[in-house]
Amino acid sequence: MAVPGTVGHMKRVEPLSGFPEWLPEQRLVELAVLDAIRRQFELHGFVPIETPAVERLDNLLHHGETDKELYVVRRLHARSEEPEPALGLHYDLTVPLARYVLQHRGDLAFPFKRYQIQKSWRGERPQDGRYREFYQADIDVVGDGTLSLAFDSEIARIIHEVLAALPLPPVRLAINNRKLCEGFYQAIGIEDVQAVLRIVDKLDRVGEREVRQALLSEAGLSEPQADGCLQLARIHTPDTSFAQQVRDLGAESDLIQEGIDELASVLSSLSDLPTGSVWADLRVARGLDYYTGTVYETSMAGHESLGSICSGGRYDNLATGANRTFPGVGVSIGVSRVIGRLLGRGELRASRRTPTCVLVALSSEQLRGQAQQVAKRLRERGIPCEVFHEPVKFGNQIRYAARTGIPYVWFLEGEQSGSQEVRDIRSGEQRPADAATWSPRDNDLVVRVERPAASA
Amino acid sequence: MAVPGTVGHMKRVEPLSGFPEWLPEQRLVELAVLDAIRRQFELHGFVPIETPAVERLDNLLHHGETDKELYVVRRLHARSEEPEPALGLHYDLTVPLARYVLQHRGDLAFPFKRYQIQKSWRGERPQDGRYREFYQADIDVVGDGTLSLAFDSEIARIIHEVLAALPLPPVRLAINNRKLCEGFYQAIGIEDVQAVLRIVDKLDRVGEREVRQALLSEAGLSEPQADGCLQLARIHTPDTSFAQQVRDLGAESDLIQEGIDELASVLSSLSDLPTGSVWADLRVARGLDYYTGTVYETSMAGHESLGSICSGGRYDNLATGANRTFPGVGVSIGVSRVIGRLLGRGELRASRRTPTCVLVALSSEQLRGQAQQVAKRLRERGIPCEVFHEPVKFGNQIRYAARTGIPYVWFLEGEQSGSQEVRDIRSGEQRPADAATWSPRDNDLVVRVERPAASA
Repeated sequence: MAVPGTVGHMKRVEPLSGFPEWLPEQRLVELAVLDAIRRQFELHGFVPIETPAVERLDNLLHHGETDKELYVVRRLHARSEEPEPALGLHYDLTVPLARYVLQHRGDLAFPFKRYQIQKSWRGERPQDGRYREFYQADIDVVGDGTLSLAFDSEIARIIHEVLAALPLPPVRLAINNRKLCEGFYQAIGIEDVQAVLRIVDKLDRVGEREVRQALLSEAGLSEPQADGCLQLARIHTPDTSFAQQVRDLGAESDLIQEGIDELASVLSSLSDLPTGSVWADLRVARGLDYYTGTVYETSMAGHESLGSICSGGRYDNLATGANRTFPGVGVSIGVSRVIGRLLGRGELRASRRTPTCVLVALSSEQLRGQAQQVAKRLRERGIPCEVFHEPVKFGNQIRYAARTGIPYVWFLEGEQSGSQEVRDIRSGEQRPADAATWSPRDNDLVVRVERPAASA
Repeated sequence: MAVPGTVGHMKRVEPLSGFPEWLPEQRLVELAVLDAIRRQFELHGFVPIETPAVERLDNLLHHGETDKELYVVRRLHARSEEPEPALGLHYDLTVPLARYVLQHRGDLAFPFKRYQIQKSWRGERPQDGRYREFYQADIDVVGDGTLSLAFDSEIARIIHEVLAALPLPPVRLAINNRKLCEGFYQAIGIEDVQAVLRIVDKLDRVGEREVRQALLSEAGLSEPQADGCLQLARIHTPDTSFAQQVRDLGAESDLIQEGIDELASVLSSLSDLPTGSVWADLRVARGLDYYTGTVYETSMAGHESLGSICSGGRYDNLATGANRTFPGVGVSIGVSRVIGRLLGRGELRASRRTPTCVLVALSSEQLRGQAQQVAKRLRERGIPCEVFHEPVKFGNQIRYAARTGIPYVWFLEGEQSGSQEVRDIRSGEQRPADAATWSPRDNDLVVRVERPAASA
C-alpha cells in the first residue's frame, strides 16, 4: 500500500471537528500564553507533574455528566491472551491528580502544591468555546489530613496574578462558598441541595426566569424558597459587605455563619488587589458536587458569553482509597477556550511568524561556512537565526525574510572590504555589524504576543 | 456512586505498564530537557506546530509494522445516528506532519521548517527504552517541489548542536545515504533491496552472524552477495574517506556515485564540528521504507544498547494527495527513551525538588500581608518564592524548606528592628536583605539539571 519514498497516504485532510489545530503563527501565541502561565505557577513555587493521557477506565467512570463524554482507548489488534486494563483519555486534570496523589503519596511532600498543564479530551458536541481536545492549566494545593484556609486565599491571589500577567482583556474573579449556599438552602427548608446548586449554576446562561421555573418544577421548591435562592444569588460585593446582605435575608445557621466567615476571610486577605478584580459573588455555584467550601469563577471582559475561563474550589477529600484524607483547593484555566476565542476574533497575534530574528544572507557557496559561523556566534548569544539555504539573488532572500517576518538580514560582505552589515528590513536601514557584539532591538529578540484590539 | 466532597473514587492506583509517570523532581528534569531542545530548535529558526493527539484512523493505517501497535479512540457512548470518523492516537509526528502540510499548504511558507514536541502512542510490549506513551521532539524541513541538499547538512548540524547543548553523555551522529546502499545492492545483483535494508538495520542489535544468516535464508542472497552487504556495512569514517573504501569494493553505478557524492557533501560541510562527533557510517539503514537519501542515527556514549536516540532522513515526498510534491528531511529525538534511561540510572537529577528559591517565613497572622508583599516583590524580580502557610515555629518552616530543597528562608523581623534577613539554609549564613535588591546566587535562581555520574 505504501508508495516508496512517500511518508503519508492521506485519504482525507479536512479538519476534525472539535480538535483545534493552529498555524505556526497561532501556535506561537498559544505557546507564549502557556509559557506565561507556567512561569507564574513556578514563581509561586508550585511543582510540575504530568500524568499519562490515559487512565484506567474504572477510575474515570462514575462522575455523572462526564461519563458519556469519555473517550475509550484500545489497541487495534489487542490479543485476548494478553488481558489489558480498559483505558480512557482523561477528561480533566483533577481525577488524574487524585490517582497520582494516592499512588505516590509516600514520595510527595505535603502540603503538595502542584501545577499541571496538559491536554484533556471530552466527546462533547463541538461548539464555540467547547473543544474535544483542549489545554487545561491546573494548580491545586493538597493537604495530608488538613489544609489551612490560607490556601483558599493563595489560590485566589495566584489566579489574579497569573491572569493579569497574560495578554488578555481584564478578568474578574468571583468567589463564593458552598457552605454559605448549602446552609442557606437548608435553613429555608430545601432538602436536595445539590439539585438546586446545579440549577443555580445555569443563571449566567439561561437567566433568572428560567432558573426560577426550574427551581419550581424540577427541584420542587415553593415560590418563597425559589425567590430566596434567587435573592441570595443576586448578592455580589467587592468587599465583605456581602455578609450583612446575607444576614438581611433572615436565614441563620452555624453552616451559613461558617460560610460567611470563610468567604469574608478570603475576601479580606485580598483587599490589596486592584478594586473590582475580586468579588464575593453568591451566584457562583459550580456544577461539580465535590466542592465543599470556597468556589471560584472568572469572567473575561467583553467575553462574558464564553463563561468562566478559570474555575475551581475547595474539596474535602481528593480521593478515597487510602486511610488518609487529602483535602485540597485548586483551579483550572481553560487555556484552549481563551486562546481559541481570542485568536478566532483576531484579538491576539504574534509579532512575527517565526522565532528567527536574523536571516544570514548567502551570496555564494564559498561563503556558506562563514555564514554558518556568524549564525553560530549569534545563537551562542541567544539570538535566533538561520542561514539562507542557497546563494540566490539578495532580493529573493530579503523577500523570504519579509514574508516570514524576520526583522533583520545579515550580509557577510559590506560596503567596505572585510566588513559585515545588518539591515533592518522594515526601515531599510543598514549598518556595519559584528556577530560578537551586535544586538537586535529589545522588542525584536523573541516573538511577542500583541493585542491589536487592545488599542481600540 | 460519587462520595460527596470527594473527587476521585479509585479502584486501582498501580502504575500502568508502558505509561511513564514521574515524581515532581523528575518532571523538573524532563521539562528542563524539553525546554533546552525547544530553545535550540527556535534558535535555528524552526517554527512550532502542534497537531491533535488523534488522526483519522484511515490516515494512520497502512504503514506496515506500526499498524498493529495503533491505539483506536472512540466515544464510550457514541450514538449511531451521529456517524463520526474512526480515530486513532498518532504513533509518530511524521504522519501528522504529512497531513498538516497537505491540509494547510496554502497558508505555509516553504521551505517549511517546523519543530514539533509532543507525545506519541504505540501499543508495543513495554520494555527498557520502549514506552506506550512517549515524547518525541521532531524537526523537519519540507520543500515545495524541490529541497536543497544543504538542508541535509543543516539537519545534521542541528542534531549535533541540540544534543551537545543537553545534559547528556557525548553523542555520536552516524550518517549514511540510501542511494549508496540501494545502488550497491542492485549492482551486486540484489533485487529486494528493501528486505536487505530491513535485515541490515538489525546489525547493532543482533550482530553480523545473525544478519548474514538472515540475508542468506530470508532474503535469499548468495554468499558473495551477503558478504558484500556486510563489507559495505563495516565502512565507517569520520571524514569523506569512506568514498574510496566503497570504490575498493568494486561495485559501480550512477546511483552509487550519487549516494557517495551526497554523503561526501554532507560530511564535508560538517568538518568544522568536533572530531569524532559525526561519522559516515554505512551500516545505518533505518527500517522505514520512505527514506530515499540521507539517513541519520545517533548513539549515546555508555548507552549504545538503548539504540539510536535521534534518527531520521530524507524522503522524496511527504504526502500523496495533492498535485504537488513535498520532499523533506528531518529527525526525531526520542526524548522519553533518553530521559527514562538517565533518570532510571540516576544519571540526571534536579538541583532541587521545587521551583521555589525563597521561602518567606511567617511569624504571625498579622505579618501575612507584609510577607505577601515581600513575595510579590521578589516574584516581580523573577525570583520564585512562596509564603509559608501558617505561623508555626521557625524550626518547622526551615525543615519544610530543607525537605523540599528551597535554598533560602526570608525572615521579616531581623536582629535589628525594622530589618529583614535571609538565611542560606545550606550554610546557615544569615544576612540583612531588602526584597527590592537582594538576589540569590546565580546557580540558585532556577532549578538546574545535574549529572552526578558525569564526574565519575
